Amino acid sequence: MLSENCYDVTKYPVGNPYDDIGAVINSIIADIKSRQTVSDQNDGGKPGAVIYVPPGDYRLATQVVIDVSYLKIVGSGHGFTSSSIRFNTPAHEAARWHEVWPGGSRMLVDISPDAADGEAAGAAFYVKRTGNPRISSVEFADFCIDGLHFISDGSEQNDPENTYKNGKTGIYVGSANDSFRITGMGLIYLEHGVIVYDADALAIDNNFIAECGNCIELKGMGQASRIANNFVGAGYRGHSIYAENYGGILVSSNNVFPRGASSVYFSGVVRSSLTGNRFHSFYPGMLVFAANCCENLVSSNHFLRDREPWAPMQKYDNGLDDLFGLLQIDGSNNSIIANHISETIGTEYVKPAGVKPVIINVVSGISNYIANNHIVATAEISHTNDAPNSACFSTQVGALLSISNLKELEVTAVLVQKGSVRNIVLDSGNDEQVEMDKTKNAFRGTPVPGKNGELSI
Amino acid sequence: MLSENCYDVTKYPVGNPYDDIGAVINSIIADIKSRQTVSDQNDGGKPGAVIYVPPGDYRLATQVVIDVSYLKIVGSGHGFTSSSIRFNTPAHEAARWHEVWPGGSRMLVDISPDAADGEAAGAAFYVKRTGNPRISSVEFADFCIDGLHFISDGSEQNDPENTYKNGKTGIYVGSANDSFRITGMGLIYLEHGVIVYDADALAIDNNFIAECGNCIELKGMGQASRIANNFVGAGYRGHSIYAENYGGILVSSNNVFPRGASSVYFSGVVRSSLTGNRFHSFYPGMLVFAANCCENLVSSNHFLRDREPWAPMQKYDNGLDDLFGLLQIDGSNNSIIANHISETIGTEYVKPAGVKPVIINVVSGISNYIANNHIVATAEISHTNDAPNSACFSTQVGALLSISNLKELEVTAVLVQKGSVRNIVLDSGNDEQVEMDKTKNAFRGTPVPGKNGELSI
Amino acid sequence: MLSENCYDVTKYPVGNPYDDIGAVINSIIADIKSRQTVSDQNDGGKPGAVIYVPPGDYRLATQVVIDVSYLKIVGSGHGFTSSSIRFNTPAHEAARWHEVWPGGSRMLVDISPDAADGEAAGAAFYVKRTGNPRISSVEFADFCIDGLHFISDGSEQNDPENTYKNGKTGIYVGSANDSFRITGMGLIYLEHGVIVYDADALAIDNNFIAECGNCIELKGMGQASRIANNFVGAGYRGHSIYAENYGGILVSSNNVFPRGASSVYFSGVVRSSLTGNRFHSFYPGMLVFAANCCENLVSSNHFLRDREPWAPMQKYDNGLDDLFGLLQIDGSNNSIIANHISETIGTEYVKPAGVKPVIINVVSGISNYIANNHIVATAEISHTNDAPNSACFSTQVGALLSISNLKELEVTAVLVQKGSVRNIVLDSGNDEQVEMDKTKNAFRGTPVPGKNGELSI
Repeated sequence: MLSENCYDVTKYPVGNPYDDIGAVINSIIADIKSRQTVSDQNDGGKPGAVIYVPPGDYRLATQVVIDVSYLKIVGSGHGFTSSSIRFNTPAHEAARWHEVWPGGSRMLVDISPDAADGEAAGAAFYVKRTGNPRISSVEFADFCIDGLHFISDGSEQNDPENTYKNGKTGIYVGSANDSFRITGMGLIYLEHGVIVYDADALAIDNNFIAECGNCIELKGMGQASRIANNFVGAGYRGHSIYAENYGGILVSSNNVFPRGASSVYFSGVVRSSLTGNRFHSFYPGMLVFAANCCENLVSSNHFLRDREPWAPMQKYDNGLDDLFGLLQIDGSNNSIIANHISETIGTEYVKPAGVKPVIINVVSGISNYIANNHIVATAEISHTNDAPNSACFSTQVGALLSISNLKELEVTAVLVQKGSVRNIVLDSGNDEQVEMDKTKNAFRGTPVPGKNGELSI
Repeated sequence: MLSENCYDVTKYPVGNPYDDIGAVINSIIADIKSRQTVSDQNDGGKPGAVIYVPPGDYRLATQVVIDVSYLKIVGSGHGFTSSSIRFNTPAHEAARWHEVWPGGSRMLVDISPDAADGEAAGAAFYVKRTGNPRISSVEFADFCIDGLHFISDGSEQNDPENTYKNGKTGIYVGSANDSFRITGMGLIYLEHGVIVYDADALAIDNNFIAECGNCIELKGMGQASRIANNFVGAGYRGHSIYAENYGGILVSSNNVFPRGASSVYFSGVVRSSLTGNRFHSFYPGMLVFAANCCENLVSSNHFLRDREPWAPMQKYDNGLDDLFGLLQIDGSNNSIIANHISETIGTEYVKPAGVKPVIINVVSGISNYIANNHIVATAEISHTNDAPNSACFSTQVGALLSISNLKELEVTAVLVQKGSVRNIVLDSGNDEQVEMDKTKNAFRGTPVPGKNGELSI
Repeated sequence: MLSENCYDVTKYPVGNPYDDIGAVINSIIADIKSRQTVSDQNDGGKPGAVIYVPPGDYRLATQVVIDVSYLKIVGSGHGFTSSSIRFNTPAHEAARWHEVWPGGSRMLVDISPDAADGEAAGAAFYVKRTGNPRISSVEFADFCIDGLHFISDGSEQNDPENTYKNGKTGIYVGSANDSFRITGMGLIYLEHGVIVYDADALAIDNNFIAECGNCIELKGMGQASRIANNFVGAGYRGHSIYAENYGGILVSSNNVFPRGASSVYFSGVVRSSLTGNRFHSFYPGMLVFAANCCENLVSSNHFLRDREPWAPMQKYDNGLDDLFGLLQIDGSNNSIIANHISETIGTEYVKPAGVKPVIINVVSGISNYIANNHIVATAEISHTNDAPNSACFSTQVGALLSISNLKELEVTAVLVQKGSVRNIVLDSGNDEQVEMDKTKNAFRGTPVPGKNGELSI
């Protein structure tokens, strides 16, 4: 027999978790609240509970509403597999596949929200509590939330499974919260993976959040949180990691893969860090600092931008051209230090045609410090890809490993727009590659091989 | 039925875990030892056990003494919430709170040690074994240790819950040990969170150790350990991360928040790394290398120091003035590279009044390498804070996000004391901001915007 | 009663897990396959399962063959202890030890493969599946795989337990795979810890893989994987971390200890990152980029090379001399930025005698960017070590903490071989320490203390 604060959705006497795990979990939460009623009894009283979800396919027809602290929902498998490859594989091929759906401890989100009801309406898990204190230490771990299908976006493409739209959200935290943990999860085919408002000391670690419209979105305002060691990759319309009005975020050691309109989009974020991440994108704007982001550190990251190699997705992009900046910075006193940035793209794909792509574009703000970034820009020799759609893996890896047949590509390594001054640009491009008013900013060009010697002392 | 090496404290026939989980766990350990008696039987013999602690409130009146290897104690919830906010909220407000105590799998430490008996006497978990081999692979995971209250420190303040004193320690490892793991824990309101002597290959990862007098302390001597991905924040008297006489420590991707007399204090630590952390402090001395720390790497960290914004704590600090150095370095051959350092403080709060705060203070040792650090110093325009004490979160985030109304603050970016020579300081401050004997050290100033051009080649 | 997709090896009705856990797990896998037969039923059908391994000693006589997705095998203890110290301790001492074997949820690998059958034949776990899709989301967590003994390598040493040879592999993934996770494991005394072919989005995190011939090997080709937060340390013959033909790997925050012929060996790896690691080695060649590794980032790492201090291992090394390079780079467009590199070795141990050791050796390729590395080279004053073999810990820590009695050692900080051009070397050694054709590469020497002043502007 389980302890009274340990629940197993398959053993709970109310509801059928295979038909609607949402109703079962809501009933469990009601049970917890009916048993833990006193806020201060013998120095305790409301320790919360753990709800276990064994491996299995569970439909979720009713939204789970969480308003108790110290609730942990845990499975035994993040269960990710690529639904994107599957839906772009001809049906007759997929019919022979070993399996076609994600697995593990998997919830199938059956909620079909009206778009007018907003993101919360389409959430599998909706956390919200009024009053004090902030809801604390809710934990999601090691299970899978699968949105199943994307739907038509009304465009002419008639390509519903590639729209990244379905109005579904995996986890939506709608009120101020403290010390939450989201770890080891698998989130897939959701328009929004995780949305958290007003977080304090939130941990989003070691998850697999991919093939979602947007992956991780921190909204409202918040502080002192960590997004680390995740595999993340949004659709071409959305952001892999988004935050607004947060301070003290640490985004570290994530492997962020395409597509993602942006790998990271910060709006009004300050005093935060992006360190030790690997970012891979198919479009410009892979890192955007908007709305006066200040005093942030971007260091020791690997940025790679190349062209979409997989046929089914080559018709989509994020709409930005190569003058936007691979990194675009609006803000002051930021530090961009010791990053490697690779851009490799056939000159025929540069937009507008014939321009020099901009790598780091400082569009406004002052006193940014851009030092010791190594920018490698190459032009791919065009090649035809006639691989079948199901061969996504070999197509992608083949593209990634293509380092022969490259020639140098001329780029603007750093562009500082006219309104931005007092920036310091060091060893991140030579005199010809850095475009700015060198009387209003400070500059030391990367020494050019063959023109050397003067500086050794 | 559980396997014989799997225990659940709520199912064990001896003792009552709600009254004294310490006695129950000690009885379980005795049972393990009575069953696993032969050190070498069929190539095994002492595999250890796992003890599960379901969510609940468990008093711990008897110290747990661990002297067997391969023991794992695991719960289902770190259960952190802020007791500090709660104890600084008027009782009539807190009476309406949903809950007032931490939760999850929570142990309430009832031990009331005599200070004269030392730190081990007040430990909830005391690990010690004589003889060989070193005790190995003890694991603590996913539960909460709560010291409940701080007590009067005898001062005139009469502010007992804010003293960070109670003689209690969460986990105390008193003898040489190998391959321990402390992960996913919540430690709160303890004078010492974790103290480990003589560690080898210790992992302290993904914990939430806050509102403790000191959080993580590595003592004695040791090597090759990791402190990563934690949320940590000590009281104004103690250290968030402390180590002495260790080599090869990796402190990485932690989000270390105030207060903490120091975010990191190293004494005689060598050949170790602080990389990719986010440090936030309210006082000088946020990083201290004392007693000849050598060959350490400090890189890709974000340091922020501002002023305590929360009224109940504004009367406390760590006693250091702004000439101490935000980072103080005693030692040789250290590397401080590619960090972002922000200091923002109203000039009226600078101590001694009128001085230029020192950011990096090299007090002794030789041949340190300080390069590519971006130091942003600003003066906050003073503002009155009339928020209620319960509004800690909005007060903190409001302060953190304040990036308008800032003016530049003059600081000494790097100060190398007279006795220290052969240091190399590059691009970490301009000629006026770096104070040292430039004939005995090496220096290249950060180029100054508007005085530029000469160096581009 | 457990849910049908939750298995416990000690409760399963077929076989005896203590005699052969391999046969039991294979029977469980057969049961899963017999129950989950339809690939697309009600939007699901093959969610997989979890197999729990309680703490205990389990012999593994039959290789486990995994060909189902979403299988998680999980224990309650990685159970590492040093078998190397134990086997180098005199038997009469070890006879008094508390325990002599690793523990936790421990599998004793009894497979004795014929070397001619290859690495897969000696694997405890062999994952392989033909057809589509790639096998996905298999997870190994929190248990121990122990190879028990090494065996004679036929050499004259007659030192079988120190050969790092036994033909055994812990986990061998032989076909293309997606979103696998290997976390919290303890792997010991295996010739190969983990070998994974053709991985996509593989996570190898928080493991303890040591005293293995080789620890982590990524083979075939693959992408977008992460090796993070591990303790790793191979034998003198093998590699701690090896990869070939991968792109987009993130190797981050690992604590890699000796020995290891290489800490990291990359062959034809591109667009990958090594950031925030702590590497410790006893030999040259601790980082090797071979076979045209391109566009990789090596930053914020701490490298330490000193001499083997432990008597039983002092007769072994990796056969390389000090001209090989502590880091050897074959490839183009790599970035080596903001690392700390310490080498400390008595001059009498330098090979060939009298040479200046090479720290970073660029042997071929073009346009590498080597900047802001702090290289600390010191000569240890020789001392005799008369500690008993069982005192491995104090011997190692004593050596690690030895920072007095050091004198400066002359080294070639950076050597660029003749065939390699257009490299950029900045602030990583002074003019005398960097050896390359300065007309074909670019160079700015680290300013030399006492010769300074010209560059401050």
